[in-house]
Amino acid sequence: MDDKPKPNGGEQWIEERFWDYFATRFKIKKVLFSGKSPYQKVDVLETEGHGRMLLNDGLVMITERDEFVYHEMIVHVPLFVHPEPRRVLVIGGGDGGTVREVLRHKTVDRCVLVEIDDMVVDACRQFIPQTASCLDDPRVTVTIGDGVEFVAKTQEKFDVVIVDSTDPIGPATPLFGPEFYGNVKKTLTDKGIVVSQGESAFYAGDTQKALLRILAGLFDRVNLYNYTNMSYPGGLWSFTFASRGLRPVWDLEPERVQKSGLDFQYYSADVHRGAFAIPAFMRKNLAEFLSEV
Amino acid sequence: MDDKPKPNGGEQWIEERFWDYFATRFKIKKVLFSGKSPYQKVDVLETEGHGRMLLNDGLVMITERDEFVYHEMIVHVPLFVHPEPRRVLVIGGGDGGTVREVLRHKTVDRCVLVEIDDMVVDACRQFIPQTASCLDDPRVTVTIGDGVEFVAKTQEKFDVVIVDSTDPIGPATPLFGPEFYGNVKKTLTDKGIVVSQGESAFYAGDTQKALLRILAGLFDRVNLYNYTNMSYPGGLWSFTFASRGLRPVWDLEPERVQKSGLDFQYYSADVHRGAFAIPAFMRKNLAEFLSEV
Repeated sequence: MDDKPKPNGGEQWIEERFWDYFATRFKIKKVLFSGKSPYQKVDVLETEGHGRMLLNDGLVMITERDEFVYHEMIVHVPLFVHPEPRRVLVIGGGDGGTVREVLRHKTVDRCVLVEIDDMVVDACRQFIPQTASCLDDPRVTVTIGDGVEFVAKTQEKFDVVIVDSTDPIGPATPLFGPEFYGNVKKTLTDKGIVVSQGESAFYAGDTQKALLRILAGLFDRVNLYNYTNMSYPGGLWSFTFASRGLRPVWDLEPERVQKSGLDFQYYSADVHRGAFAIPAFMRKNLAEFLSEV
Repeated sequence: MDDKPKPNGGEQWIEERFWDYFATRFKIKKVLFSGKSPYQKVDVLETEGHGRMLLNDGLVMITERDEFVYHEMIVHVPLFVHPEPRRVLVIGGGDGGTVREVLRHKTVDRCVLVEIDDMVVDACRQFIPQTASCLDDPRVTVTIGDGVEFVAKTQEKFDVVIVDSTDPIGPATPLFGPEFYGNVKKTLTDKGIVVSQGESAFYAGDTQKALLRILAGLFDRVNLYNYTNMSYPGGLWSFTFASRGLRPVWDLEPERVQKSGLDFQYYSADVHRGAFAIPAFMRKNLAEFLSEV
């Protein structure tokens, strides 16, 4: 956040810089919440065109207007590849949007959210119920704690683990490491899948490569899929997909998507398959780590 | 362009606003060219992170760093669907990037570029040879003139017409009308295809709908495909695809892409197919006009 949100005054814009040469700006109406936790600065703003917006350390996490894209794509891809997802672990994602989409799957009877920063959860519960209200669902356990420690210690097994993290700076840095993913693998059931926020191919190709290298050292199958995040710089963003065997396109049954009766705003079986058709420059950068889809 | 480029002074940024509530900003090093033609303001800037950039009336048209995405996707989709593209008409696209990609197809023996504004062509020839140098190729005819008049009067037939236009404001407005597309249809050969810059689904869904309605009233088959434009607001942008019969996915032969030996940075047969898997909210908005792919 380049300009601090000003509670009073003329036209207010919030700015997110990327590599110090590119920036996105959003016009804001009002600061709804602004706090500093032990981990990061947390802001919730009312924007002019994107509804309410959550920022961590000045980086846009979600906006009410387009969060459906991120949350549908991080959740429904693994949950429709896994034949019967029952237990799902979400690390990060304190805004609740990922949990909301997980709960739409009737097979799911337990969803554990491990968020390090209770200020994010509290701010979203109060100001962004669109994503956070699902956290009161009886199938959900909200744990405030360190996701790295959680996967190191838990005895519980999960069918799908979703790493809904910020960029690999600040509190999320250890989430991008090999120890963390080794422990994630241990918590997965035999057909387990882990999906992670996978950064920008265009602006952070090296980070993508580092993350895929770690995953490829641990998992039988590693892939990456794209979606367009309308409020992240450049728009072209990715999720990584790693599994103990399941293939992200081959093992998708489009009929199951149809039969679910779920009404999506972004996701479809076609979109799911199309998302794994990654642009040539990404394939060149990452080919050594990518499994067949 | 909210801030005028300043030839001297401190840190300089160029800003493009979208709907007055969202903006993208690029850090610039230098103004290379700035002029006002009878049609629009034309600027070429040296940016900090995106190479050289062309702006028309303050809107980012291309940057050297990411123009490959736009140009590969506007060209190779129709040219690999058409079984033997020989004559191609490009309307707009005075920067030359579209023509450059057209010329990579060995079947093409004639490419006509009709650009209304010679200032764009001249500025790009001088300052953006990455896209404009191909305009000297003997297969290319550069015509400075009105694309609307050109298609109304020409007796020539084309296998593919590419409408490489700016947004439907300023000089490009008539390019979005039914009379124009009726004349485009007349210039097409039996297996002809017309592809057009198709705007943002997220920020300009109504414009997309209006354009598809016009196309659907004229052409046997109408579709839309997506790509991520890293320097356009929101990133999710589209091209329309209309044809006298050819289908954009069904009629693609992936082997032909392979055999072409062309080395792409964005395009591939998989990316081509994936691009037609449009998000659910777009399908809901446009379903009545869309043909099977």
